[in-house]
Amino acid sequence: MDGTLVDVPLEASARLRALLSPQSIALVGASDRSGWSTGSFTNFELLGFEGSLHLVNRNGGEVHGHPAFTSCTEIGEPVDLALMLVGAPALPVALADAAAAGIRSAVVLAAGFGEAGPDGARAQQELVELCRGLDVTCVGPNCLGFVNVLDRAPAWSGQMASLVPGGVAVVSQSGATAHTIASFAAVQNIGLSHVISTGNEAMVDTIDMAAAVLEDDRVRALAMFVESIRDVERFRLLAARAAGLEKPIVMMKVGTSALAAEIALTHTGALVGDDRLVGAALRQFGVVRVHSLEQLAITAGLLAHTGPLPPGGLGVVSISGGACDIIADRAEAVGVPLEPLAETTQARLAELLPSYGTLRNPLDITGAASENPQIFADALAALAGDPSVAVLAAIHVLPTAERAARFRPRLEVISTGLRAAGPRGLLVDQTFGEIDRHTATVLEGIGVTHAMTGLRDTVDAIGCAMRWSAWLRRARTATPVEDELELDGRDVAWSEARGLRLLAEHGLPVVPWRLVETSEEAVAAARELGYPVVLKVVSPEILHKSDLGGVALDLQTDDDVTDAFDRVTAAGAGVAGAHVEGALVAPMRRGGLELIVGAIRDAHWGPTFAVGFGGVWVHVADDTSLRLLPVDESEVREMLDELRGRALLDGVRGSPPADMDRLVGAIVAFARLAERLGPRLASIEINPLRVDGATVEALDAVVAWSAPEPGGPS
Amino acid sequence: MDGTLVDVPLEASARLRALLSPQSIALVGASDRSGWSTGSFTNFELLGFEGSLHLVNRNGGEVHGHPAFTSCTEIGEPVDLALMLVGAPALPVALADAAAAGIRSAVVLAAGFGEAGPDGARAQQELVELCRGLDVTCVGPNCLGFVNVLDRAPAWSGQMASLVPGGVAVVSQSGATAHTIASFAAVQNIGLSHVISTGNEAMVDTIDMAAAVLEDDRVRALAMFVESIRDVERFRLLAARAAGLEKPIVMMKVGTSALAAEIALTHTGALVGDDRLVGAALRQFGVVRVHSLEQLAITAGLLAHTGPLPPGGLGVVSISGGACDIIADRAEAVGVPLEPLAETTQARLAELLPSYGTLRNPLDITGAASENPQIFADALAALAGDPSVAVLAAIHVLPTAERAARFRPRLEVISTGLRAAGPRGLLVDQTFGEIDRHTATVLEGIGVTHAMTGLRDTVDAIGCAMRWSAWLRRARTATPVEDELELDGRDVAWSEARGLRLLAEHGLPVVPWRLVETSEEAVAAARELGYPVVLKVVSPEILHKSDLGGVALDLQTDDDVTDAFDRVTAAGAGVAGAHVEGALVAPMRRGGLELIVGAIRDAHWGPTFAVGFGGVWVHVADDTSLRLLPVDESEVREMLDELRGRALLDGVRGSPPADMDRLVGAIVAFARLAERLGPRLASIEINPLRVDGATVEALDAVVAWSAPEPGGPS
Repeated sequence: MDGTLVDVPLEASARLRALLSPQSIALVGASDRSGWSTGSFTNFELLGFEGSLHLVNRNGGEVHGHPAFTSCTEIGEPVDLALMLVGAPALPVALADAAAAGIRSAVVLAAGFGEAGPDGARAQQELVELCRGLDVTCVGPNCLGFVNVLDRAPAWSGQMASLVPGGVAVVSQSGATAHTIASFAAVQNIGLSHVISTGNEAMVDTIDMAAAVLEDDRVRALAMFVESIRDVERFRLLAARAAGLEKPIVMMKVGTSALAAEIALTHTGALVGDDRLVGAALRQFGVVRVHSLEQLAITAGLLAHTGPLPPGGLGVVSISGGACDIIADRAEAVGVPLEPLAETTQARLAELLPSYGTLRNPLDITGAASENPQIFADALAALAGDPSVAVLAAIHVLPTAERAARFRPRLEVISTGLRAAGPRGLLVDQTFGEIDRHTATVLEGIGVTHAMTGLRDTVDAIGCAMRWSAWLRRARTATPVEDELELDGRDVAWSEARGLRLLAEHGLPVVPWRLVETSEEAVAAARELGYPVVLKVVSPEILHKSDLGGVALDLQTDDDVTDAFDRVTAAGAGVAGAHVEGALVAPMRRGGLELIVGAIRDAHWGPTFAVGFGGVWVHVADDTSLRLLPVDESEVREMLDELRGRALLDGVRGSPPADMDRLVGAIVAFARLAERLGPRLASIEINPLRVDGATVEALDAVVAWSAPEPGGPS
Repeated sequence: MDGTLVDVPLEASARLRALLSPQSIALVGASDRSGWSTGSFTNFELLGFEGSLHLVNRNGGEVHGHPAFTSCTEIGEPVDLALMLVGAPALPVALADAAAAGIRSAVVLAAGFGEAGPDGARAQQELVELCRGLDVTCVGPNCLGFVNVLDRAPAWSGQMASLVPGGVAVVSQSGATAHTIASFAAVQNIGLSHVISTGNEAMVDTIDMAAAVLEDDRVRALAMFVESIRDVERFRLLAARAAGLEKPIVMMKVGTSALAAEIALTHTGALVGDDRLVGAALRQFGVVRVHSLEQLAITAGLLAHTGPLPPGGLGVVSISGGACDIIADRAEAVGVPLEPLAETTQARLAELLPSYGTLRNPLDITGAASENPQIFADALAALAGDPSVAVLAAIHVLPTAERAARFRPRLEVISTGLRAAGPRGLLVDQTFGEIDRHTATVLEGIGVTHAMTGLRDTVDAIGCAMRWSAWLRRARTATPVEDELELDGRDVAWSEARGLRLLAEHGLPVVPWRLVETSEEAVAAARELGYPVVLKVVSPEILHKSDLGGVALDLQTDDDVTDAFDRVTAAGAGVAGAHVEGALVAPMRRGGLELIVGAIRDAHWGPTFAVGFGGVWVHVADDTSLRLLPVDESEVREMLDELRGRALLDGVRGSPPADMDRLVGAIVAFARLAERLGPRLASIEINPLRVDGATVEALDAVVAWSAPEPGGPS
């Protein structure tokens, strides 16, 4: 991979990989009276753990039909990991005992820590210190643990579902939700490599775990369930590593409705909610965002199977016209292309299906093909050869136990056609249903490598897979991050004059302007620039000039300018503590479109970038496009395309279309500048960036800085 | 029911009800060599048909292990319905034979009719004439038939899935899709009353069938799958009847992407796609629209179980915090209220859960409650008593065969709490899964009356149910339709002057204006109205005045007006065939907001009504709200609320908020007028309807008529 997607393994990854592959496990707190213990023990049998399992109960005796040790030190052979089922009070002693036995990894079920108020938080801090002192890496507390499905190692508290081994790693802070996802994956025949929960994340969080399993060659996709992205920079590195390995991260992020924190931009007030920023960030990082547990499992399962898709659309063959209609509607709604078939494909189909009328995609070969499945297979093979088909779907009921006798022979034939598309050939049932072991075995027997259920969820997952693949192709040509600018004198805010100068120095087109200190200078400037003009008071302390009478518009004569100069500077002088540098004179602009481009440094997300239409347009609900910096040219074009008022740029009511290259160039220059202003930037905004055909110019600039870190460079 | 929801049984309903409940059926074309026949025959056994089944094969002999008649007339006892499996060539003779045997109803499988080009269409017309002559009602052709699940009568070609009897009637033009929906419903334990397909609909369509089953008291909800709504008026009657019976119609309509036909409004060009109009119409008719087969079955199943819901929100109890997060996000996204709990409920919960912190809804009672399910049950009972809770959901895995041993005892306790909410208490599994017979039996045994799977689909279905219930409450107060206006001289188009007069006569606020014929009159009018003024040429033949120089704005003096009068009338006179009546003088308006309100008579949908912002706002993608006429005041308010630029009406940039009562009043007056203009109206539009605080006035009016029907009243 080129550009930004460099190989950045996260710290501790190697140690966590070892933690996740224990050869020898101690079940500490094992007891016949505990449902947790009984369930955990069952998992070892169900999964066929091939390492050593040691039961530890401080009273010894027999547990789960086996003799139990009274302490870990009694085991007498090396143990890799302790699954701690003991309660919080017994935990310190149990951990010390484990450490004394040379155990360096522990999964801790006990609750009553960080989730339980200030006392719990203190207890958790003590736990971390204890573990550090003992050189033990602790997963949890308040955590169900993990199952390494591929290596058959279940360090899970309570009973896990029967899983199908495969390439999807499930990583979730919530253990209950990890279990739910895993159970669902099992009945969809989606193979899992790991099921990992991190609980209170005292020492190890979901990013650590995700980074560790990413390095396992057998892991082909990550399915993450998260409540928040706590560390944007580490998450960005994780995403970059995943992209470098061409492994998708599919994510469901919840808590969006609770986190109604809004981002405030200068001038325009609160424009957007946090969730849109999450969405923008994940899209930029190449993370596939989904909005249901079902989609999380299905999408990760699909991508683990296909890997990155080539460019192209979806090809569909079905014996049901209704299914074709449903797919066409859904594909359009979620942006999955259904390309017209190539002429060679059409010619081939015309041979196969001489009596059919239009040969469209989705291809309805009608119920008549039920009698002759070879037609179905041949049609599939024809579509598989079409250069526009990236994913091929055969729509048919699955050979469930109830139906296998009726449909297996037909599906055997259909499968031969589907195989022409390799791993990108899918068998799809119209509605959601389970794919149990019986069905999976029949499918495997007839050579169907991936089956999915439900047209809606299948089309949605294919859409996600296509968008991720396209992102991956684009990411390879991303531009590198630039160095921070060296700037002097970063006060709380800059005057407009200084802001406009900064813009101009960095390649942005700026309206002609003069900074004047007397009314005579103002008149001279007005004459030079040409009437009509505008006059604005210039002071770094005054951001909202119009509200204070600090702006005079549409001045037609020398007298107008003289009066206005006195008025706006007097207005500025009336503001307590404001230092008035003079007034800014610029030609009055009319017509054209106004955009707002702005960047803020968000405390959580870092440099964040917004583009929207200005003027009354800011009142169109949510019509602002957001990204994290850096952005490149294609991303800026995408941002503009996202705006609901996008058509305005094509020219309306006789106004000329905007020069898009020039506009995009200006916005990219602005984004690069904002990116290089460094961590002390609070916000920078152009409002408006005026666009009138080929003319693009900033009419205004607001730059504000945060206070320097105490002791840091100013 | 009051108002418009009158009892309007559709024609032929009684005859179709008889057709759908046959006591005696002839399987015509029965043959061991036909998969259709074998499947059909199997259905009679599977369903336990209690009437008489007669096999007919023109060669006689033994079929499906029973002796076959060589013709229907041979049967020798009354037969209610013939399920015709014979091909198109043999059909006329077979139908005549059936009719001769006194059979009055037939389901016809044969293809090669309306779906097969012009020849097929002719054959279908001949088939209809034959059936009419024989007094036979034909369902199809090219149709799989129907299953009356409740009366155990399967007139279905090919094998049907094993169904659960219940209150949902599935009605679909496509037989394959009806079968898919029914199969899915079966594995979700959704009870069906009927599964009906109508094929080519030569004599009986989905509206007929839906109307017939609606009258069956055992049918509680309709699940319809349709490709188009061919007859809006009959469909409106069906929907009104369903509303009168308080039975929901849940509908999935496909073909939206293919039908990209757009509605053109005068001036503003193509604003909206057909699908938005479908959506608006269905919402107005109280039809619950869904976008997947799964949602179709699940939503109908839920509503068949609960009936109309009382006002209120969703109450949730779960042992998983992750599930609570997912529900909160989804509920917000799809508009399902999660109301704060009443103080009495909170007090009750505080007794039950003394150690818990915040008692929110969704209520996370944490995994600790796994050990003590009585807490779960008590919390459910507390929420069931909360006045804000219309639907109560307990989130828990279902007792599938694999899990029943572990979870049945716990669920037995939970169920006692859920029952406090009556039929509105639901057990919900977090992810999608099947509810097979085993699970359904366990659920029934422990008193759970309705279970659903998948948080996403459950919350979505509850949202649909709540919206339908709210619609039903509102529909009871709907206003009656008014009579058509008597108007003279409806030419192709009216001049603006005539249009403005019409608006004023019907209670709309209109800008002051004068029609003048000379420049002297124009100056006098300008002085009277006050400068500045606008001048527009008046001619019924000229709709787009500005394009031709027929409009002069911002005239400040008598001289301006004199010049402008000559200019605009000359411009008008230059248009071939235009009759210039003079010019219209009105005060020049500035500022404020511009709306467009318009109505057109759509060839398919009838009178259709649109509201949007004018000026540059028409370029905001899709920002127009649509309805079919009539609309009432609450609907107009809803339309305005749908606009993305809605916030503009609250006052922006220092402009005053719009007087909403006055604005809504003007729009309602316009809608009433448009409705009363009768079937000859082509379009009527105000562009702009200016709003500036308390001032609301029409600045323009365009009225166009279609040519009268030949021979009809002019």
